[in-house]
Amino acid sequence: MANIAKKVSWSSRGDDRGERTPLLNGAEEVKYNRQLSGGAIFHIGRLSTVDLEEEITPEEDIVRSRPKEIPHNEKLLSLKFESLDYDNSENQLFLEEERRMSHMSFRCLEITRWVICGLIGIFTGLIACMIDIAVEYFAGIKYSAVKQNIEKFTELGGLSISLILWAVLNSAFVMVGAITVACFEPVAAGSGIPQIKCYLNGVKIPRVVRLKTLAIKVFGVICSVAGGLAVGKEGPMIHSGAVVAAGVSQGRSTSLKRDFKIFEYFRRDTEKRDFVSAGAAAGVSAAFGAPVGGVLFSLEEGASFWNQMLTWRIFFASMISTFTLNFFLSIYHGKPGQLSSPGLINFGRFDGDRVQYNLYEIPLFIIMGALGGALGALFNIINYWLTIFRIRYIHRPCLQVMEAMLVAAVTATVSFAMIYFSNDCQPLGQDSTEEYPLQLFCADGEYNSMATAFFNTPERSVRSLFHNPPGSYNPITLGLFTLAYFFLAVWTYGLTVSAGVFIPSLLIGAAWGRLFGILLSYIAPSQSIWADPGKYALIGAAAQLGGIVRMTLSLTVILVEATGNVTYGFPIMLVLMTAKIVGDYFIEGLYDIHIKLQSVPFLHWDAPPTSHWLTAREVMSSPVTCFNRVEKVGRIVDVLSNTSTIHNGFPVVVDTTDNDEPGKICGLILRSQLIVLLKHKVFVERASSRLSQRKLQLKDFRDAYPRFPPIQSIHVSQDERECMMDLTEFMNPTPYTVPQETSLPRVFKLFRALGLRHLVVVDNENRVVGLVTRKDLARYHVGKDGLEELHLAQT
Amino acid sequence: MANIAKKVSWSSRGDDRGERTPLLNGAEEVKYNRQLSGGAIFHIGRLSTVDLEEEITPEEDIVRSRPKEIPHNEKLLSLKFESLDYDNSENQLFLEEERRMSHMSFRCLEITRWVICGLIGIFTGLIACMIDIAVEYFAGIKYSAVKQNIEKFTELGGLSISLILWAVLNSAFVMVGAITVACFEPVAAGSGIPQIKCYLNGVKIPRVVRLKTLAIKVFGVICSVAGGLAVGKEGPMIHSGAVVAAGVSQGRSTSLKRDFKIFEYFRRDTEKRDFVSAGAAAGVSAAFGAPVGGVLFSLEEGASFWNQMLTWRIFFASMISTFTLNFFLSIYHGKPGQLSSPGLINFGRFDGDRVQYNLYEIPLFIIMGALGGALGALFNIINYWLTIFRIRYIHRPCLQVMEAMLVAAVTATVSFAMIYFSNDCQPLGQDSTEEYPLQLFCADGEYNSMATAFFNTPERSVRSLFHNPPGSYNPITLGLFTLAYFFLAVWTYGLTVSAGVFIPSLLIGAAWGRLFGILLSYIAPSQSIWADPGKYALIGAAAQLGGIVRMTLSLTVILVEATGNVTYGFPIMLVLMTAKIVGDYFIEGLYDIHIKLQSVPFLHWDAPPTSHWLTAREVMSSPVTCFNRVEKVGRIVDVLSNTSTIHNGFPVVVDTTDNDEPGKICGLILRSQLIVLLKHKVFVERASSRLSQRKLQLKDFRDAYPRFPPIQSIHVSQDERECMMDLTEFMNPTPYTVPQETSLPRVFKLFRALGLRHLVVVDNENRVVGLVTRKDLARYHVGKDGLEELHLAQT
Repeated sequence: MANIAKKVSWSSRGDDRGERTPLLNGAEEVKYNRQLSGGAIFHIGRLSTVDLEEEITPEEDIVRSRPKEIPHNEKLLSLKFESLDYDNSENQLFLEEERRMSHMSFRCLEITRWVICGLIGIFTGLIACMIDIAVEYFAGIKYSAVKQNIEKFTELGGLSISLILWAVLNSAFVMVGAITVACFEPVAAGSGIPQIKCYLNGVKIPRVVRLKTLAIKVFGVICSVAGGLAVGKEGPMIHSGAVVAAGVSQGRSTSLKRDFKIFEYFRRDTEKRDFVSAGAAAGVSAAFGAPVGGVLFSLEEGASFWNQMLTWRIFFASMISTFTLNFFLSIYHGKPGQLSSPGLINFGRFDGDRVQYNLYEIPLFIIMGALGGALGALFNIINYWLTIFRIRYIHRPCLQVMEAMLVAAVTATVSFAMIYFSNDCQPLGQDSTEEYPLQLFCADGEYNSMATAFFNTPERSVRSLFHNPPGSYNPITLGLFTLAYFFLAVWTYGLTVSAGVFIPSLLIGAAWGRLFGILLSYIAPSQSIWADPGKYALIGAAAQLGGIVRMTLSLTVILVEATGNVTYGFPIMLVLMTAKIVGDYFIEGLYDIHIKLQSVPFLHWDAPPTSHWLTAREVMSSPVTCFNRVEKVGRIVDVLSNTSTIHNGFPVVVDTTDNDEPGKICGLILRSQLIVLLKHKVFVERASSRLSQRKLQLKDFRDAYPRFPPIQSIHVSQDERECMMDLTEFMNPTPYTVPQETSLPRVFKLFRALGLRHLVVVDNENRVVGLVTRKDLARYHVGKDGLEELHLAQT
Repeated sequence: MANIAKKVSWSSRGDDRGERTPLLNGAEEVKYNRQLSGGAIFHIGRLSTVDLEEEITPEEDIVRSRPKEIPHNEKLLSLKFESLDYDNSENQLFLEEERRMSHMSFRCLEITRWVICGLIGIFTGLIACMIDIAVEYFAGIKYSAVKQNIEKFTELGGLSISLILWAVLNSAFVMVGAITVACFEPVAAGSGIPQIKCYLNGVKIPRVVRLKTLAIKVFGVICSVAGGLAVGKEGPMIHSGAVVAAGVSQGRSTSLKRDFKIFEYFRRDTEKRDFVSAGAAAGVSAAFGAPVGGVLFSLEEGASFWNQMLTWRIFFASMISTFTLNFFLSIYHGKPGQLSSPGLINFGRFDGDRVQYNLYEIPLFIIMGALGGALGALFNIINYWLTIFRIRYIHRPCLQVMEAMLVAAVTATVSFAMIYFSNDCQPLGQDSTEEYPLQLFCADGEYNSMATAFFNTPERSVRSLFHNPPGSYNPITLGLFTLAYFFLAVWTYGLTVSAGVFIPSLLIGAAWGRLFGILLSYIAPSQSIWADPGKYALIGAAAQLGGIVRMTLSLTVILVEATGNVTYGFPIMLVLMTAKIVGDYFIEGLYDIHIKLQSVPFLHWDAPPTSHWLTAREVMSSPVTCFNRVEKVGRIVDVLSNTSTIHNGFPVVVDTTDNDEPGKICGLILRSQLIVLLKHKVFVERASSRLSQRKLQLKDFRDAYPRFPPIQSIHVSQDERECMMDLTEFMNPTPYTVPQETSLPRVFKLFRALGLRHLVVVDNENRVVGLVTRKDLARYHVGKDGLEELHLAQT
């Protein structure tokens, strides 16, 4: 028997649903309420137990279920997040427009979609290009200055001055970046991947796809990478691509107050989300030179319904994005037209004999995968506690900036100390990856090998670890580097700077992977196949990254594309799979942890397996605020203005005279639609005929999208409150409905597959008895003791 | 205004739906019928026109709408195809089982799924390995014999004897293959890709996933490739993988009459189809060494709902499959454990400088794409007419075998003539791809270059065209070869032999692509980048294949993976896109043509764009045969036995006393479930209490799956006919429903996204008014003059 944690708060739960007032403006409010509550109790086993809290009044209840101070933990779902509407509201206006359109217009729309995807690719590629050049430039200045300084003081003595210079330079860069992010747009912090995951899942994260966010993100990334933090510039590209897509596809920018009057057809959540998928894919593609990986990333994170043409368009955007990046970088590097170095990160080529692997290496790869999973879990656990600490104590911008500066200074100090105390000297070869070789205390013609790892942008360090010839690194150097970088990276992720975790993960993994390879050749020196530790560096990098982020297919493909070689596909898959299994045993992936800590109502792929116990009756929220087909304006305004329960969707019922019964469903209308109607005063006076109602067009709704004004900004006079509003033309007349007996997995499947926002629960007579929204489904999850239910909180 | 071709046959249309008899056994049959028909008329514009044919009686109507002789064309939908049930029937038995299962059992199930996917990969890889070795062996014998013979008679004169030997050997191989296919299992003919596309789309093609089909397919492929036809062994691998998956996942073989009593949980369409997706992916993966391409193929063709874990499992099966093939081939080739030559076809490596391309080559690639699209369309048009001819005139097995033999002999003759009259001699280099160099009339130390293309398995020829150094081929040779092979390949596809069209397409494209490259270097000899015509051969191959099959993302990835290099991703994508656009202008893709000619009710991704005119009311079939919750056994038997209308799903309605009205929906039951109930005599006598009804378990349904006995084989005595049957426990109590006003695109989306088989249309009161099935949706398509409706035919 499924053990259902009995934390039911089936009372009013706010957003996206009907409120506490009864369905119809009847007199028997309390009676009706109780009656429905009786239906919404939990079944434990197969016995219906009547909840003891049934008698509480609505007011008490609201206070109790929404404590003002929420301890931040992952057992909560926040009510502040709204859903996207992936389901078109097929109201009369929409259908009329679609019917007016000829076959040719649909073809033109399709071509426009392709053009937009092309533009998304181009802009994303350009942004990637800009970030790359800027980072190279600033990092170049910084490393040259520090190098000169070190060289000067190595002979003179007094290297502590070099350390201070390095730390100050780092902190300065990071400070600028952190201040911008913390003060102007906190949502631009971090890699942005959790936010984009949520957006593609159907959750509206405020301000996440705005132009301002993009500008600050790009600037922040340049600062934090140039500032020498243990971060990468790849993660933020995904966010950047998504913002580009959201902007380009709408043909206007609300931040810049410009409306180009183009692409108006695409001004709704359905179309926008498709383009944002393309943007995210283009971002991945530009970051890793992995167009297929980008498509798979978008699908893995976002797709609720796979469509061939959509996928093909997403792929087009991805391809254009790498191509653009490639093209402009080839010009920048002085070889215009040579299009063979895709991606921000370039793992270098694994060619020829080096890519061989043998059957008996596979168990070794699996061991590395397990190691990566365990280390990844450790990373995530430490970062989890750190994040909780940050949420509790470091929430003021000045503290956040100071923490970021501290991390930058410590990073410089640790790096310097590691380089200083390392006595691992290597002969200076023809190696082109050494941009800033540090001689330090080594003999002439030699360089400090620890400095290859620390005194460099992380991308270059990864490449060195993959490709430097055997013997370039001392095992102790690698061990110390892994240790130091691991903790630096843990500390860094979650700072208020724009930066990604991909590259640091790869770097940690590459370091211990290479170490693993070197140790292997000590154990069995006769095997020539182990001669190249670069191969193990690659596997280690995959294991570590997989252990931290737990992506599956898309990560395999990204790594395969980034190495430019398909031979390693099988080992990389095995390693990622092992890392995921081992890691999942301890804790979730890093992005999921951060999503949970934000209390986002994230819908996974399937309902929890043991949830067949639950039916729509238990899951739904009830009672529901419904409107009549022709409703009094005053009531609409009152309902919308009710700040204690902010509902976004309202079933429309057939006008009944009998107030005892819930009405029969005949449609569904959204808050945003009502707002537009109120704003345009689409009223009919009681006396007049219906035809006098002002005609609205779809354009009016599109112009208001996506930032619909709040109800408070709309003034409705006392006379107008007495008018009526005919919703028939504007409501969606055929919302999806399910009967009360439907099992949770079935409700979940319908909801998830169609990307719904509201699902109406009806009884045998088609009367509205409840409403299922994202939060009602996201509440249930599998915990340690079986099925658990999360609390809802107004954070 | 959408122009709707008015070919409405809204009268009884058979399979998968309610029949002509009224809902309830009422007396006012005709009246009710007419009433509902009136609701099912077509709206042209916004005016309801009453159809003139409304007054016809049902009997006349049936005769008219089902002519006995169907002209085979693409304007028909056959009624003989049934749908798969991708939607679980969540009846009480199922829910009870799921509720009994603990969290641990679900985890075990998940592990079992992984094990099955591993097994699918292993078996698919083994089959690929077997085919490869057998083809090499037999082709080796044949070519050695012919080569010796030619060498003997070149000096003696009388080469016509060699020609005869060659033609006879070819015909003999092909005869054996064609006889097996034509006489034992015609569904094993062709590549099997159209059939698997249909299966993944949700159409049950009879006998397509049986063990016998697999055996004949494998044998047939070996014969036809060894017989020198213009075919490849890659396409059939996809079908083979699918059969393996369908067999392994069920834990039994009905052909072998063995039940291993394992994997019983997976004996339903939902689970089976997921595994078949994995099998198809494993097949692609083994054929082209393209595991990611395989996953994308499955998703592109099959996915209605993308699920991360499912995709990851499919990828696992694909990877295991290439790995197995790789491993066993490495043993066969004497290099055990060297795992770097994946796939049946090996395009060879495109490494280093050869893979460079430059910006100004992109327009050239686009031109090649357009050329490929045009040539592909020509291929498809000729093959279309040929197929129509074959359906009309060559439908007896002996004729089919004779045609196959004729093609084999002609292929040998044409090849021989081309080689004989060619005077393109090339010096014999160190080239390892020349397995059977023919000297013929060339000087010593030289070989006939036409023979490289013709006197070889097509895979080797493709590789030679890609990789032979510049100057290996004379332009005239290539031109003649393209021409000859093009027509041979057109003629061959559609023969009653098991064989694929991938390799011939690639070969044609590679030939003209290389020709294109050579001509370029004539036009602008100064450009060093054109020095390597192999690059153009690759692009040409992609263009030609894309022009014929019109696959998009998956084909790009397959080609990228098969070349082992990601650099060509962008040009290949551009080329495939251009080829698809140009080709689609003329005619559909080859597989789609064959699917249409089979009149399969195939559901595309979206409803036609201009179909917002239509609502569920017009689309649905009505009236519907419904059953009461407790139904008389006699009536069930009668309804199931009615051969004129073979229905597969029946809404269950609340028992009403009023016969005038349609009943309120309370469930949906399938023919297969009723058959099992009848077979196990789950009856209650009228007098007795309901509790005496025999208890059935889910196992009884699973044991009968998938070959449910026909109703004729179940004997029901006259006494039993008077008994009652309580359907409550067995019906799906929460079928998906839509209101009558729902627009076609909305119905389509729901149906497609959830993989439904029956969708009940209800009125405001939740009364059953119609049923939408696959055929009702597949009927509408976009033709030359806007929206068209296909006829339904009982073929």
